[in-house]
Amino acid sequence: MVKTAGIIIIGDEILSGKIQDSNSHFMVKELRLHGIDVRRISVIPDDVKEIANEVREFSERFDYVFTSGGIGPTHDDVTIEGIAKAFDVKITLNKVIKKFLYKRFGKHLTSEQLKIAKVPEGAELIKNGTVKFPIILFRNVYILPGIPEFLEKKFFVIEKLFDEPPFLLKKIYIKEYEPEIAPYLNQMVKRHKDVKIGSYPVVGNRDYYVMVTLESKDDKSLNLALNDILQKIPRRKVFKVEG
Amino acid sequence: MVKTAGIIIIGDEILSGKIQDSNSHFMVKELRLHGIDVRRISVIPDDVKEIANEVREFSERFDYVFTSGGIGPTHDDVTIEGIAKAFDVKITLNKVIKKFLYKRFGKHLTSEQLKIAKVPEGAELIKNGTVKFPIILFRNVYILPGIPEFLEKKFFVIEKLFDEPPFLLKKIYIKEYEPEIAPYLNQMVKRHKDVKIGSYPVVGNRDYYVMVTLESKDDKSLNLALNDILQKIPRRKVFKVEG
Repeated sequence: MVKTAGIIIIGDEILSGKIQDSNSHFMVKELRLHGIDVRRISVIPDDVKEIANEVREFSERFDYVFTSGGIGPTHDDVTIEGIAKAFDVKITLNKVIKKFLYKRFGKHLTSEQLKIAKVPEGAELIKNGTVKFPIILFRNVYILPGIPEFLEKKFFVIEKLFDEPPFLLKKIYIKEYEPEIAPYLNQMVKRHKDVKIGSYPVVGNRDYYVMVTLESKDDKSLNLALNDILQKIPRRKVFKVEG
Repeated sequence: MVKTAGIIIIGDEILSGKIQDSNSHFMVKELRLHGIDVRRISVIPDDVKEIANEVREFSERFDYVFTSGGIGPTHDDVTIEGIAKAFDVKITLNKVIKKFLYKRFGKHLTSEQLKIAKVPEGAELIKNGTVKFPIILFRNVYILPGIPEFLEKKFFVIEKLFDEPPFLLKKIYIKEYEPEIAPYLNQMVKRHKDVKIGSYPVVGNRDYYVMVTLESKDDKSLNLALNDILQKIPRRKVFKVEG
């Protein structure tokens, strides 16, 4: 069975258009390389109840959940509270993180800074030399920061823990309009059920008008489908094949 | 009451990382200018049942729903089917769209092309000289294409129909780390309840380390909060104020 994941982007800054989310695209691409199928991405507000509901639902539906954002020291950082509420556990001050903060800030440590040592009771810490601050894991929920530079560093640590067969991808760039190729693509979909076939029109390119994608974890099935499709398209209409 | 919206991005191509969604950020920014508060963005697969569930829930929760993607002629375009299922209505061939297609393709019209004339029974069409193909509206659900060039053209037509007081936004760029300003920001949040205050750390900028945002539909409240915050920060630490 293919392992599944859901991504929850927490942040009013995305929902109000102040910042464009790039974290979900980054994570999706990385997870795909590790053979994990992302089934859903949600962008939700910095709201305890909404976070709790979404995290609970995602945690039940998917093998892995990744949250991004809302774990800083300010008033609008309520992700930890939301996750604790999702599983009806308390919030505790984690000793390891507290120690780390004392080491860094000494007696200048403020109560706001100390907020980032708070975790849902029962959380695990993933430590690794490449990240200063440990990664917080609660059950199947990886709690990640919203700042892309920090998220990416932490994600590279986590993804090493996954070891699924990767998805294999082929792309065919075709100089033909989608409605023209739709009839035989529809046939191909029926014939190659173990290959995921996608069709994406491209606007403003002179060399190709549609990108057709084929995906599978099985190399043999993938090549069978690829050859079958290529036989149906006149050679001069195939701009290139990738993968 | 502020009008709310939800955005549903439909597409396996986003969930598999082949294409990065830019449509939601575009729509969020535009809706904000028209005073509409986007409360949630979902990215879901090309799956009839998932589309139906998400559209039904969004339609009940928000004033407006925007779907993007899955309305082309290929097998993976199942958005119309999903929306019909959401509201338990049939799918019909729309006469106006059918006529438009006949005019364009004549007797070369294929059954795949004719698929894009299918709408949930009871759908309305929004026509406008600036878009070739009409925009399909079903109850409070605007059904939009996934291709950004087409979506944007259609969205500019729709948004003219909204007439809410806009959100006003101020940004303060501060050369100070977030934990340092967190204590008085938390005070400000309590004091200015009708202004939405956000705090976003910035990495890799020498001029400022945090962007603080203030938002309100009321100009007077906004300026009161802005001045209050500015009084708390030493002038040399304020890099710039925008808005």
